[in-house]
Amino acid sequence: MSDTHLLICGNSFNDVDRDRLSTAYPAVYVDAPADMAALESGLRASMRAVAFKGHTPFGAEAMDLFPQLGLIANYGVGYDAIDVGAASARGIAVTNTPDVLSDDVADLAVALMITQARTMIRGHAHVASGRWATEGEIPLNRKVSGSTVGIVGLGRIGREIADRLAAFKMDIHYTSRSEKETPGWTYHNDVVSLAGAVDFLVVALVGGPDTKGQVSREAIAALGPRGVVVNISRGSTIDEGALLDALEAGNIAGAALDVFENEPNPDPRFLKLSNVVLQPHQGSGTVETRTAMAELQLANVAAFLEGRDLLTQVN
Amino acid sequence: MSDTHLLICGNSFNDVDRDRLSTAYPAVYVDAPADMAALESGLRASMRAVAFKGHTPFGAEAMDLFPQLGLIANYGVGYDAIDVGAASARGIAVTNTPDVLSDDVADLAVALMITQARTMIRGHAHVASGRWATEGEIPLNRKVSGSTVGIVGLGRIGREIADRLAAFKMDIHYTSRSEKETPGWTYHNDVVSLAGAVDFLVVALVGGPDTKGQVSREAIAALGPRGVVVNISRGSTIDEGALLDALEAGNIAGAALDVFENEPNPDPRFLKLSNVVLQPHQGSGTVETRTAMAELQLANVAAFLEGRDLLTQVN
Repeated sequence: MSDTHLLICGNSFNDVDRDRLSTAYPAVYVDAPADMAALESGLRASMRAVAFKGHTPFGAEAMDLFPQLGLIANYGVGYDAIDVGAASARGIAVTNTPDVLSDDVADLAVALMITQARTMIRGHAHVASGRWATEGEIPLNRKVSGSTVGIVGLGRIGREIADRLAAFKMDIHYTSRSEKETPGWTYHNDVVSLAGAVDFLVVALVGGPDTKGQVSREAIAALGPRGVVVNISRGSTIDEGALLDALEAGNIAGAALDVFENEPNPDPRFLKLSNVVLQPHQGSGTVETRTAMAELQLANVAAFLEGRDLLTQVN
Repeated sequence: MSDTHLLICGNSFNDVDRDRLSTAYPAVYVDAPADMAALESGLRASMRAVAFKGHTPFGAEAMDLFPQLGLIANYGVGYDAIDVGAASARGIAVTNTPDVLSDDVADLAVALMITQARTMIRGHAHVASGRWATEGEIPLNRKVSGSTVGIVGLGRIGREIADRLAAFKMDIHYTSRSEKETPGWTYHNDVVSLAGAVDFLVVALVGGPDTKGQVSREAIAALGPRGVVVNISRGSTIDEGALLDALEAGNIAGAALDVFENEPNPDPRFLKLSNVVLQPHQGSGTVETRTAMAELQLANVAAFLEGRDLLTQVN
């Protein structure tokens, strides 16, 4: 088994993606980091790379099981499950799969916004149930084009969202680590100021401890009764209790969410609301993009095992 | 009653819009053109303008009830319910409410396309029902950005749709009465050729007899098994029987429709399909836009009754 250098970790890998990896390199598979300690110690000593997918924490203790580990190749752009500080301290490189998923996530963000504002979930049910004929028209809803949007985090994905919304003649505001070269767009220092200026607040932050709760109770209050929250980043970026309180009380107009604090079991309070659009964390969930993500993950594994430069290292 | 020159016709007017008209000018109201003959003849003789809303035919016979009629002011951009030829022959001007609704209709078209491709109706139900926790992820779906779209009819609304989709890096193809100055976009002479070249076919034609069935059985066949039909124009523009046959047989991938041949009672075959997104003809259905449409209709009535130039005459 000394030629088996690759560990595949994550029960959310589908068969095609697992096969792609294990066809390329002899590999062993575990469901989650918690299962790593059960691997035989000689096998663990031979492991040089982990191909990882999932949201369960991958911390220092798991890393220390593999004395030769040099790469954790994450499937996905968000690598908040991996303790990158611990990896760096051990000389372990971490890679992710950016860019290839930005289009899909931005597409979903735009559709979430319009679907919420134009009450399209209700509209579909109205027709599909036959109620259109018996009950007449649905209530008038809300115009999207020409309104004001605030992008929380103008990184790769935030920028893709903003570029699309500019074509809807929207007034673009944003927060970011630093002001960008974006003539006509308005930079804000903090999320509360941003929320106070816009109709739609679209969250496109990275996950992890640094951004936890950045869309705070105060920011949600600043958004006001016409405000709509759209989140395609991580559930952790929003104070979810504050969001639910505001939605239930009508202190904001609605929300359209692809991500939640507790996936795949979102707070049941969400399920009783009529002013929300809910998606099962499927921002990158297209055949085309998931294939591209798997190929980029494999390309990072291959580069490492064959001594070439990594493609998308994050540390 | 000789100072009552305005007839309001259409039971789809809401109270606010009716009040706006009848506050501006003394007016009488009927539900539909079929009720016009019952008006007292002296009253009919005083009528100079009709403010019309609806999809029931307004033909020559109804026009001849009003010897002094000079204006039919339609609420909506589509005036296919009105026999414009008969109006012109009688010296009756017809106006509509273009432009003010183009943004809303284009927004809905883009959202319909993404909602269908990204299976968002299913995604919402998956979360809202709690099935995400018990059944896991939904199947991967389909990337929108970067794909090829065909716009059937590059008029005002078609152009707004295309401008938005260009921001999704889509390859834009179109049909139109004549080729447009649109560098990088591809003109087709006919809908069959267009359908054969694209992934998404978005119908943005005007209604009426000239465009009836223009998206033919042959065009739907040319679209092929990856093809998706989006319609925000009029149900009449598509051979609906051919569309239903193709959807049921899987000969195309899906459809996202705001309009139907038989509204508000669409063919029940639509209600059994899982590859469709259905909306109750709400393309312009926002508070902002319906107010703008009502104001433009009233502005045309006012211009006519006060002897000024009409704002948006169509004949």
